[in-house]
Amino acid sequence: MLTEAEFDRVCVVLVRARNPSNIGAVARAMHDFGFGRLRVVNEFPLPFEAARSAVDASAVLANAESYASVADAVADCTLVVGTTAVGERNLQHELLSLAKAAPRMRAELRRGVDVDAGAGRVALLFGSEKTGLSNEELSHCHWLLTIPMHQHADARHLSMNLGQAVAVCLYELVRDEASVSANLRTNTAGPADAASLERLTAMLSEVLEETEYTRRHAANSDLAQVRRLVRRMGLDAVDAPVWMGILRQVLWRLRGGREQ
Amino acid sequence: MLTEAEFDRVCVVLVRARNPSNIGAVARAMHDFGFGRLRVVNEFPLPFEAARSAVDASAVLANAESYASVADAVADCTLVVGTTAVGERNLQHELLSLAKAAPRMRAELRRGVDVDAGAGRVALLFGSEKTGLSNEELSHCHWLLTIPMHQHADARHLSMNLGQAVAVCLYELVRDEASVSANLRTNTAGPADAASLERLTAMLSEVLEETEYTRRHAANSDLAQVRRLVRRMGLDAVDAPVWMGILRQVLWRLRGGREQ
Repeated sequence: MLTEAEFDRVCVVLVRARNPSNIGAVARAMHDFGFGRLRVVNEFPLPFEAARSAVDASAVLANAESYASVADAVADCTLVVGTTAVGERNLQHELLSLAKAAPRMRAELRRGVDVDAGAGRVALLFGSEKTGLSNEELSHCHWLLTIPMHQHADARHLSMNLGQAVAVCLYELVRDEASVSANLRTNTAGPADAASLERLTAMLSEVLEETEYTRRHAANSDLAQVRRLVRRMGLDAVDAPVWMGILRQVLWRLRGGREQ
Repeated sequence: MLTEAEFDRVCVVLVRARNPSNIGAVARAMHDFGFGRLRVVNEFPLPFEAARSAVDASAVLANAESYASVADAVADCTLVVGTTAVGERNLQHELLSLAKAAPRMRAELRRGVDVDAGAGRVALLFGSEKTGLSNEELSHCHWLLTIPMHQHADARHLSMNLGQAVAVCLYELVRDEASVSANLRTNTAGPADAASLERLTAMLSEVLEETEYTRRHAANSDLAQVRRLVRRMGLDAVDAPVWMGILRQVLWRLRGGREQ
């Protein structure tokens, strides 16, 4: 069983969700399975009022938070998981079935009891029903999960209804505690949070620009690729500032700095 | 994996479902997880037309069958399972959690291959969103299943959204097979070998020296520390050369290199 504190460290993040009734359906699924933290990333003000009519979702919607970007929405999270319907996209991430993904998320939630308050916070990202998560949005994720669906012969369309997808994911997250212990990690420092990784991504991009790596290896250098490269480092909270220090020093020196 | 014949022996039965968009949502969930037999029990003609707008549910809805009674709708089934949110009702049936119920339903479906065509047919009944299944309707069931939900302190209301409940049940019914068979990608590149990591360590040390990081952060800079830092990156065979390229470019630029 997840503890109350563990339930509270799960954030469901909806990116570009436009349909208020879908947002309401997501809030209701969260309420049903005991989750309360809903975050919404949208470029325009959200019609929360319409969504607030969803049965029993009022507490979840009342506490919902709006963010201008994915980076802001996941900044305090130590594990960021994207959902995808797979399909034709050429994925650049490690991809797990939901059943394999849930124990990893629970293990991260459990880490929260060992360390300080910021640790063990998991973001679960869902894209818009039409397009899913873009590559840029996916690049904020450590890895991806998919709900295995039936392969129809004429399968042009492979996405689930948003509320149903959230319900299935949260059901699996609380479904089975038995398989958890085998997946616990031993690293005691705790993973770096997304805000640190994003700062590191920005600084590494500056270095690539400044050194003209960007110009020479254009195919490796777009921001989403750099972001994924940094996420794959699997940095903990101790090493992330070390890497920041290294890159800061590289930039300082590239720009002509000298020790006295 | 359920066989096509086994998928075809599952009937989802909606009793007194009134909202066409809920019926559409159920049809879509069935389509997503590979099920095609939808049966609807209602006292009045169903507004299927509205439901038919549900994305990708058209084949399921086109084949949907209407029945006047639960008895008629489940007449050809050998196992009839009711769904319930439990709550205050005094249940007279054996009640299983969804996770325990699914293997029993799969076992019944498997019996279909041993016996005549009518055997191994499973009906899964869902009541109206407002009231669930009545005691009369439940009395047609062999046993009941429930989707475990969170116990809220003020839990007057314990039913799930209909489409979400069907999605979660069908997900569980195909779950074991799905997680085994789905052809998903774990990280295939394989870890970088020690020689690559050691080359990277040497090059990073050069960068730290050249940028005077070593002088400023002497405590972080001895070779063993740099080596451990590189090992903790957990690099795979694809990313290791990318990092080599980045550091090579940093060194080139630090030493005054310019693109033409």
